[in-house]
Amino acid sequence: MEMEEMNQMSRRRKSRRKDTMEEGREEGETMPIEKVFAGKQVPTWREQLTFRALVVAAFLSVMFNFIVMKLSLTTGIIPSLNIAAGLLGFFFVKLWTKALEMTGCLRQPFTRQENTVIQTCVVASSGIAFSGGFGSYLFGMSGRIAKQATEANDAQNIKDPTLGWMIGFLFIVSFIGLFSLVPLRKIMIIDYKLIYPSGTATAFLINGFHTPQGAKLAKKQVKTLGTFFTFSFLWRFFQWFYSPNDRCGFQAFPSLGLKAYDNTFYFDFSAAYVGVGMICPYIVNISILFGAILSWGIMWPLIGKKEGSWYRANLESSDLHGLQGYRVFIAIALILGDGLYNFIKVLSRIIFSFISTAQSKGSRSTLPISDDDRPNTTTPPISFNDRRRTEFFMKDQIPNVVAFGGYVAIAAISIVSLPRIFHQLKWYYVLIAYIFAPVLAFCNAYGCGLTDWSLASAYGKLAILIIGAWAGASNGGVIAGLAACGVMMSIVSTASDLMQDFKTGYLTLASPRSMFVSQIIGTAMGCVIAPCVFWLFYIAFGDLGMPGSEYPAPYASIYRGIAILGVDGFSSLPKHCLTFCYIFFAAAVVVNLVRDFSGKKVARFIPLPMAMAIPFYIGAYFAIDMCVGSLILFLWEMKNKAQADAFGPAVASGLICGDGIYTLPQSVLAVAKVKAPICMKFLSRQINDKVDAFLIGANLS
Amino acid sequence: MEMEEMNQMSRRRKSRRKDTMEEGREEGETMPIEKVFAGKQVPTWREQLTFRALVVAAFLSVMFNFIVMKLSLTTGIIPSLNIAAGLLGFFFVKLWTKALEMTGCLRQPFTRQENTVIQTCVVASSGIAFSGGFGSYLFGMSGRIAKQATEANDAQNIKDPTLGWMIGFLFIVSFIGLFSLVPLRKIMIIDYKLIYPSGTATAFLINGFHTPQGAKLAKKQVKTLGTFFTFSFLWRFFQWFYSPNDRCGFQAFPSLGLKAYDNTFYFDFSAAYVGVGMICPYIVNISILFGAILSWGIMWPLIGKKEGSWYRANLESSDLHGLQGYRVFIAIALILGDGLYNFIKVLSRIIFSFISTAQSKGSRSTLPISDDDRPNTTTPPISFNDRRRTEFFMKDQIPNVVAFGGYVAIAAISIVSLPRIFHQLKWYYVLIAYIFAPVLAFCNAYGCGLTDWSLASAYGKLAILIIGAWAGASNGGVIAGLAACGVMMSIVSTASDLMQDFKTGYLTLASPRSMFVSQIIGTAMGCVIAPCVFWLFYIAFGDLGMPGSEYPAPYASIYRGIAILGVDGFSSLPKHCLTFCYIFFAAAVVVNLVRDFSGKKVARFIPLPMAMAIPFYIGAYFAIDMCVGSLILFLWEMKNKAQADAFGPAVASGLICGDGIYTLPQSVLAVAKVKAPICMKFLSRQINDKVDAFLIGANLS
Repeated sequence: MEMEEMNQMSRRRKSRRKDTMEEGREEGETMPIEKVFAGKQVPTWREQLTFRALVVAAFLSVMFNFIVMKLSLTTGIIPSLNIAAGLLGFFFVKLWTKALEMTGCLRQPFTRQENTVIQTCVVASSGIAFSGGFGSYLFGMSGRIAKQATEANDAQNIKDPTLGWMIGFLFIVSFIGLFSLVPLRKIMIIDYKLIYPSGTATAFLINGFHTPQGAKLAKKQVKTLGTFFTFSFLWRFFQWFYSPNDRCGFQAFPSLGLKAYDNTFYFDFSAAYVGVGMICPYIVNISILFGAILSWGIMWPLIGKKEGSWYRANLESSDLHGLQGYRVFIAIALILGDGLYNFIKVLSRIIFSFISTAQSKGSRSTLPISDDDRPNTTTPPISFNDRRRTEFFMKDQIPNVVAFGGYVAIAAISIVSLPRIFHQLKWYYVLIAYIFAPVLAFCNAYGCGLTDWSLASAYGKLAILIIGAWAGASNGGVIAGLAACGVMMSIVSTASDLMQDFKTGYLTLASPRSMFVSQIIGTAMGCVIAPCVFWLFYIAFGDLGMPGSEYPAPYASIYRGIAILGVDGFSSLPKHCLTFCYIFFAAAVVVNLVRDFSGKKVARFIPLPMAMAIPFYIGAYFAIDMCVGSLILFLWEMKNKAQADAFGPAVASGLICGDGIYTLPQSVLAVAKVKAPICMKFLSRQINDKVDAFLIGANLS
Repeated sequence: MEMEEMNQMSRRRKSRRKDTMEEGREEGETMPIEKVFAGKQVPTWREQLTFRALVVAAFLSVMFNFIVMKLSLTTGIIPSLNIAAGLLGFFFVKLWTKALEMTGCLRQPFTRQENTVIQTCVVASSGIAFSGGFGSYLFGMSGRIAKQATEANDAQNIKDPTLGWMIGFLFIVSFIGLFSLVPLRKIMIIDYKLIYPSGTATAFLINGFHTPQGAKLAKKQVKTLGTFFTFSFLWRFFQWFYSPNDRCGFQAFPSLGLKAYDNTFYFDFSAAYVGVGMICPYIVNISILFGAILSWGIMWPLIGKKEGSWYRANLESSDLHGLQGYRVFIAIALILGDGLYNFIKVLSRIIFSFISTAQSKGSRSTLPISDDDRPNTTTPPISFNDRRRTEFFMKDQIPNVVAFGGYVAIAAISIVSLPRIFHQLKWYYVLIAYIFAPVLAFCNAYGCGLTDWSLASAYGKLAILIIGAWAGASNGGVIAGLAACGVMMSIVSTASDLMQDFKTGYLTLASPRSMFVSQIIGTAMGCVIAPCVFWLFYIAFGDLGMPGSEYPAPYASIYRGIAILGVDGFSSLPKHCLTFCYIFFAAAVVVNLVRDFSGKKVARFIPLPMAMAIPFYIGAYFAIDMCVGSLILFLWEMKNKAQADAFGPAVASGLICGDGIYTLPQSVLAVAKVKAPICMKFLSRQINDKVDAFLIGANLS
């Protein structure tokens, strides 16, 4: 059975953003986009999974695996590749079909559903390159990384990579994420109407590509998208020239002053996040900004003053024993508080509806029943778009038996086989992980839907700490923790990717079933391709993972560092950190309670703890970006509401997509070792005077 | 008699920019702005000169004299103050009239003509602070500056400033500029339809302030102007934070790469020049760009390779013995070629028309006669705006007898009295200067009308060289040269300011006569205020003019350096420089001939030598700015011609005015010695690596 009694919640969420999110605003059409597409037949789910789609997907998978591997072994920061996958998928299949068309052999036209299927498959596959932890936990187990630390580098706590166990490990842990949240897709997409900015933008792009001739507004929208796509791409390219390293260029522009910059308050000129801000509802952006001010504006500077007292002075900025510890763990507490609250709420409703359906079987239809005693007629009328999309989204079901059965079966296999790969990882650790994983997966998919940030690595770190502490250093707790991180990250990361894809599928009328199958195929591809690509790097570059080398894999050391912290126990956390965690966990629950039990008028001004938590950990700069996006949309709506509604999402998608596709040339430049020629540097006047004196002295000016 | 047979020329010029400059495009109104103002009575020229206007002008004169003095004694770069004068004039008189209105004593309403009169008076007065040379030639005569050079610092070549002779000198030389070009105003403004971007922008601003209620489009235009005014002002303010010195900030942004930046090819983010580019016809911008590429892109780099062979190596970049010599003198040759050609053309037409009028007296009316045998009916219909403006511009004449008589009388006084102040300056030097001055004044006013750049200082330098060389070092040639510079600069600079003001007056229906009187009053004010303000600085700061002091007056040394070069004779110019000058002088004449004798279709694609010359001397960056402006307008016209025509000039004026008014806070910041907190620096990657190493070594990062 489906969870169909979530309407009340959904409606409240809708009303919270009623003024900003009109029906169908995601596309902002005045003529519903699905009316434009109405003449086009939607292929069955089997027809969506074409041979050519899988060939193109396999090709792109290899390419994207190289890109992601490269990025995770150099800086460790990996952007969302959904858009690039959608765009390149379109490009290659179009090439294919055009070629066939010319020879007259084209039997099946290229549809947007097929496009979505390719994109999903590629994302699933290249996702493994990230969640496989080749730049983080998996490689952190190796002796090469272990030697860089002074603690826990005995044989017990080392496991060097080999192709065999890596592929095996990935096959065991990677599929379970697909099953963990499948039953919740309707809640996330239809009832909660979560945004999933990247997914929405991708769908917008794909719809744009496939818009039939004659749709004037749609054409205009696609043109707008194209303009901003080009602008965003060129802008990113222009930025590149001034940024040979992280401390140079527009990304380091102290637009609010140097003091604010030191506290991560600056506009980093990321067109993508301005676009994300334009797609997200105002309350999300305001919540993020509020969280940024609370954390980076108030708490971290205050806690920073306790340096030397609450925690040791002169630590690395990424050291969890220091300020970073507060950031990571307080953010996790807030996320867990909000996520758990919502998970329990959903669960209780499921149980309640299950019981009431069982009691009244036969007497009631399966129509959704609002539980706040108001007749169904008061629910806002559903737009044509929503109706059609919901119809297709609900058509090809994935039976819950498959979902639950799959989850339990894979979990069982994992519990049995994982301890064989990592003897330090006891079977009951895995069991515990699989019991809690769905909660965390839900939290992550929910947060990602609101803000576009996947915090999979944060949950992974949590797993390292808990399991590591439980096992202890003498029992190989480091390896146990890192392996548990793999288990957790795979689920959590896959869950949010999958939901992002479902959103794209929902907006392009792709069948959930074909997407699910495509994800399974993609995951299987990734489980083979990713370790092979890593192995290539590992063999080719003898100094892989060494500090200062070409591929330093910075996060491998960081993850191992966290594991060492874990085995030392929570007591090694900085002072009062745990107290703060309790407070923020409770605060998240309270804020949710207040929102649920206050009137709708008040509720829509109460920030979302989940959104607030993201900047705690990441920094305030993307909050500024997103608020700039909000501001642009706000001013636009003030000036011309109809125009803003029609073209706002196209502009936003264009900005996001242009920035996204830039990953490709960026990677090419990185692989070719081409570095930017100019550094745009920001120095305080005093330091600048000294630098000028130095430059004159060294005859460089 | 007036030069009324210039129609042919005017028409050709018009046709050259026919596609870009529709009738009345300066205001781009669809309802002519003068129709909007039609209900408002234009006061007589005596009524425009109110007591309150003169009081406000006197007050602003003192303020602006301080600003200009400060700037010329620190960096020597002085922006156009027309707009600030117009704006503040409006503000103060409005305050005055509002106050009187409230007490009920207001007899005469505040008109835009009065506003223009104030602006003109303030510009004339503060112009003296620049053309008086307190930061350049006048102060360059002093012993304090002389001691800094090794040559020519005997008593013969020194004249220390005293209040007495400075005021006397200024009264003698400053008024003659007003008379030199007055007879040519109709040719410049009505026939040539020169743009005078600052003057046009000021007029647009003043018209905006005084627009009567109820004019919908005008209101929208004013709103657009306001928006871009604010944007431009805030943008300039934002830029300030990143620019504690010239080598920092957006003005030093190597947007086309470091190599191009070294050759002055970069976009300096000056909103003002983007605006100027939007107002100027395409051919002007293209000419400037062409000149920039020819000089900074090709010639200077090639000549630069001859360093050590054609001229001494390791010279200061401002040394006229080196590359700067080529820049200054080739630019002057080009300007003189174009200017002289046009001057002679105008003169020959005047004489021709004089003769033909004398011959056919009585048989013909004084109506303009086209000399290319086409009937008058083919001239394009004159717009309402143009008709009304021309009517008022031609109403209050300044008799040519006054102009010529004034010029001759003042010249005679100068020739007699100047040698009494500077015994080194023989009477025949002054005579020669006054014979050639009108040609150069014409050139400058013409070039300024095209591009907004006044090159008064370039003409001043020419005078230093010629007269200095003529007198020789042993006869006090340095003082003679610098004094001749004063004579020349006063005329040339006043002439372009005056014509700029006449353009404003033309567009605001201010009477030329009231403006002329206002300029005379303003000049008289300036002749007293400017020396007094300088005297204050001179007394208050004992180290005025010393290198490294607070007021280093950099141009005082430079001008004295040029004078020393002059007394050494032209032979000291770098190799082949004179040859280049001959070639470019001839080229300018040839290009003009080709344009005049080729068909109109071809002519409109031939660049203007006058416009080409400006970047030779200044650099290529403002060519980029102006072309960006052109490009914006071009794309806008492509997209929506009607909208671009209606709002383009408002946007351009807003950009220019916002940047212009920024001078005030900038000066306040400079006086208060507040320096920008951050330096946005651009370093090549290699140098950046060294700087980073230095910063880490010095514990500054």
